Parts: sequence; C-alpha cells; structure tokens
Amino acid sequence: MSPTSADITERLLAGERGALARMISWAEDADSRFPQALAAVYGRVGQARRLGVTGPPGAGKSTLVNQLTGLIRGREQSVGVLAIDPSSPFSGGALLGDRIRMEERVGDVDVFIRSMASRGSHGGLARAAVDCCDLMDAFGFEHVLVETVGVGQAEYDVVSAADTVIVALCPGAGDGVQAMKAGILEVADVLVVNKSDQAGAERLQDDLRDAVHTSEVRRGSGWEVPVLACAAEHGEGVDGVLDAADRHWAWLAEGRLEAARSRHRLEQVKRVADELLDEELWGPRGWAARVERELSSGSTPYDVARAVAASILGDDGRAAPGTQSEGGDTA
Amino acid sequence: MSPTSADITERLLAGERGALARMISWAEDADSRFPQALAAVYGRVGQARRLGVTGPPGAGKSTLVNQLTGLIRGREQSVGVLAIDPSSPFSGGALLGDRIRMEERVGDVDVFIRSMASRGSHGGLARAAVDCCDLMDAFGFEHVLVETVGVGQAEYDVVSAADTVIVALCPGAGDGVQAMKAGILEVADVLVVNKSDQAGAERLQDDLRDAVHTSEVRRGSGWEVPVLACAAEHGEGVDGVLDAADRHWAWLAEGRLEAARSRHRLEQVKRVADELLDEELWGPRGWAARVERELSSGSTPYDVARAVAASILGDDGRAAPGTQSEGGDTA
Repeated sequence: MSPTSADITERLLAGERGALARMISWAEDADSRFPQALAAVYGRVGQARRLGVTGPPGAGKSTLVNQLTGLIRGREQSVGVLAIDPSSPFSGGALLGDRIRMEERVGDVDVFIRSMASRGSHGGLARAAVDCCDLMDAFGFEHVLVETVGVGQAEYDVVSAADTVIVALCPGAGDGVQAMKAGILEVADVLVVNKSDQAGAERLQDDLRDAVHTSEVRRGSGWEVPVLACAAEHGEGVDGVLDAADRHWAWLAEGRLEAARSRHRLEQVKRVADELLDEELWGPRGWAARVERELSSGSTPYDVARAVAASILGDDGRAAPGTQSEGGDTA
Repeated sequence: MSPTSADITERLLAGERGALARMISWAEDADSRFPQALAAVYGRVGQARRLGVTGPPGAGKSTLVNQLTGLIRGREQSVGVLAIDPSSPFSGGALLGDRIRMEERVGDVDVFIRSMASRGSHGGLARAAVDCCDLMDAFGFEHVLVETVGVGQAEYDVVSAADTVIVALCPGAGDGVQAMKAGILEVADVLVVNKSDQAGAERLQDDLRDAVHTSEVRRGSGWEVPVLACAAEHGEGVDGVLDAADRHWAWLAEGRLEAARSRHRLEQVKRVADELLDEELWGPRGWAARVERELSSGSTPYDVARAVAASILGDDGRAAPGTQSEGGDTA
C-alpha cells in the first residue's frame, strides 16, 4: 500500500531515514501528498545551517563537500548532503569518482546523502531542491550541504537559497577577469581557489581579491568576501574554508539571518505559485488557444503577453493583495 | 542621441548590421523600446531555418558550429550565429580558442556572430535568445545557428526553440547509459558523436542507437533520430550532420513546421508574460508583504502559494480568457 501523508510524516519525525528519502521523492515528483506532509513537519524547519557549494565543472566541488562533511562530523555534528546533477552526462564523468568517495560515509547515521538529477526537460528543480533542504532540516540534520554545478539559472537558484554560499574555482577553468564578469560570483560569500597546488592558482586568487576589493562581488552587502586557497584532494586548507563559513554564519547571526531566510522563503513561494499558475494559465483551459490565434494574426509575443498580463492583473488591480479579503484562505 | 525605435528598425530593414546588434542589445537589456521595434520587423520573421547545437562542455560544439557555418556558406547561404555563454568561466576555457576561430569569419558579410552571456543572477536568457534569433531571422539570414552548453534549464529552453536540434556528445563526457537518463536527449533531432577518432566513440554511438531504438529518445514523434559520428576538428563527417539536419527540415516541411513553431511562439509569450507578471505580482506593490506575514505565522510555501494562485485566478475564473472582452487589447 502506498503510504499516506500522515504515515510518512510520523515516521520522519520518529527519525526514520526511509521516510525522509520517500518525502524527498514526493517533492521531486510533485506528489499531491507532499504539501500536506510538509505542513506537518514545517514547524521544525529552520534549525539547520545551510551551506551551498558551487563552481564550474572540474573545480573539485564534490571533493570539497566530502572534506567539509568530514570536518563537520569531526565536530560531532550531523550533515545532510544534496548533490544536484551527478548523474547527468553534462556534468562530466569526473564526479562519479567523488560520488563513490561520498558513499564511504553511507554507514554513518549522522550523514544523509541525496542526489537530484538536473533534468533538462522538467522545471521545478530549484523548488524541489529547496523542499529537500527543508526536509533534511526538519529531520534534524544540523548542517545541510548543497552542491551544484554553477552553470544554469536553476542551479544558481538552488545554491543562492543557502545561508552561506561557497564558490569554488580552480586554475585553468576560466581566468579571474572572466570570473568577475560572471553573475554567479555575486552570490559568493566565500571564494575558494581549489587545486591550489596547480599552476595559476595564486594568480587566480589575486584576480579574485581584486574583484572583491573593487566591489565587483557583493557590492554593498557589508560582508567582505574572503578569497581562500585549498587543495581539497589533499585535505589542505579545507579547515580554513569551514572557518570562513563559520565567520559568515556569525555575521548573519548579528540580526541578518531572518531577513535573508525570509527572502529565500518568498522565492520558494514564487516557485510553487509559478508551478500552480503555469498549469492554470497555459494549460488546455488557459490562454493557449487565444494566444495562438493572436500570434497567427501577426501580433508579436510582447503584444500578446501584455494583453495576457493585463487580463490577469485586471484593470482594478483585482490580483493585488489589497483588494482581497485577508486571512482564512491559506489553509 | 539615443536612437528611437523607428530609427533602429528602419536601419535594420535597410540591412545595417549595427542596427541588428543594437536591437539585440535592447532585447538583452529588456529596453523599453524593444517591443515596439520588434513589432515593426516581426512581419519578416519566419523565413530562416533555426538550428540548435547543444551538448556537454568539451563536446566540441563550437568547432561543429564553425564547420557547419562553413558548409552552409559553401552553399552560398547566409548564417547568423548565437553562442550562449562563451564568456562565462563556467563553460571552461576551451571555448575561447573556438571563438577565435569563429572570428575568422568576421570579414564575411553573410555571417553574423553574437555572443550572449549566461548570467547566473539574471533571468530572461531564453527570452532574449529567442528575440535574438527572431531579429537575425528578420534581418534576412537564411540560417540561424544557436549554440548552448547543454546544462541548465534556460539553455535547454533556448535550444529547444530551434527547428532542428543537434545534440553533440563525445567519448568520455558521460557514457551512453547516463546519456539515456538525461532529459536533454529528449530534445535531440540529430545525435552526433563528435571526436569520433577517440577511444569509446563507437561504443557511445552504439549506446545512443540503442537508446533511440528503445524509444527512450523522442518517443512517438515519428522522426527517427539518426546517430552520427564526426570529427569536427578535422572536418570529417560534418557534411553528414548537415545532411541529417536537411532531412529533418524536409520532414518538418511535410506539414509539421507550423505546429512546432506555433508551440515555440507560445513558449515565448509565456516567458514575456512571466517577466511582466513577476514585477507586478512580486514587486513592492505585489504579494511580497502579505506572503511574508503569512510565512512568519507558520504557513508553508505551498499553503501561501495556493492562496496567491487562487486570488490571481479568481473563483469566477476571472483570469481565464473566456470571460474577457476579446480583441482590441493587444496593441
């Protein structure tokens, strides 16, 4: 028999890892039981520290995550790991070896590892990934580590939902000037040059420091992004990375954490609402037929989209929250 | 003085490449002059054949695009090329060399090359990329080639808006079994194993053929995806790739092209509408304040999103097209 939402949440709250795994799958599959199940455990969300690790393919992210996991376990704290995209051929074969190394931790009950494929043809990756982090948090893991390849918008959304974001680069995978141009650096709280024993590592570190000092990175946030070096493969410098993450966490704890998390939760509401609206607005009973008619009469996508948006919003601001009766309709 | 929309479209329609470049920048920047300018040239959109080329980093996509461009030019036909993400460090340094090779074609007035960075922190990439293809089409290029790294959702959206999609793989960048699992293969009209002189190429080709025959790829479309080999670096087999694209084009021309393009245009309307709605719904005068209040009272993102969606859609189906007065509101 397929378990009910109440079965699963009861088992999850009792500390059953299988129930956690099942509920994550519900989130991935957008199972209709998921929203109710999440509501039953949502009161326990918010205790975990969320750490995102991103960077280009080949920067050694998985090795870094593995080492960070080891250091955190050395502090007797528990860790949930979410790795996005390890099974995709587009993230390259190198990840496989790292994944196997992570599997060595499988016997450790205070470590939970989950992979999530970044499927090209389906949306909802960022939404499901954040759900997964919420569940690992509610389950009781003290740290949640999320690793994504820093390439696409969805992967960016995933990692930027973390409290602290580590961006790992390595020499040869794009020089410092190009790194400055890449929007994903804007999300970095800690910059790490991995493979620091390779040629060009110091130059890359210098370039990144220049970028930080000329305020190309994190303009105006008040947090000065440290630029560190490590050789995760050899376990060198990873403690410095974790220290920097700790310092960022302490900085957040000075009254900044709630505002940041509030922004992250709002982003998640938008993702869920977008999924709900997408079906209603663009499904067979939605706008598709009218839009096709107007497009075939020569209107541009901009003309048609403006008309659609105006109808949805209404001339009287119908869709604005101020005109709605408040309360009681969120159950 | 900043040019008006009418200035630019007049110059674009007169064949000025600078006007084309400028209008593409307007699309990228979501300039307020863009919608009107697009409307002025939209009647000329639809003549070009759009060819998408995607695949993992290192598969040799740029080399393949460069060779395809050469072959098409050999037919005395013109080509516009849009390359997504060459400047990002996350696509790897290897692209740079290929880009320089493409630059050799700069003197050719029948080739136009445009790069578009895949910025992590900004949405709108797919929307702007499709706008760019529409503009190159309206300008009069007979072929539009779009190259993206096949990783993220936005990049997937870009390439799937093409008439014919070539997915390039190479040995060592993910084996066949993993390729079968990756959603992006679903979008392939032509599968190419590049670097066919490298070890594992035949095996990869066999695996991909198996995937096609077991209908893992393009289930039910009626088009059997060819699995080809080439060594674009040496110019070997690229003519076969272009032949396959020609055959797919001929297949589309048997009454399938309009339906496919109609779907693509609808997707573009959704992207533009999403951008318009995003500001209205989630900007300062939108839902943000109410959502934050409800989240802080313990509601889950699902509860809040459901309430938001219900308000937008209205109990009486207000946002559904049937209840709107039709016509006249798309100007």
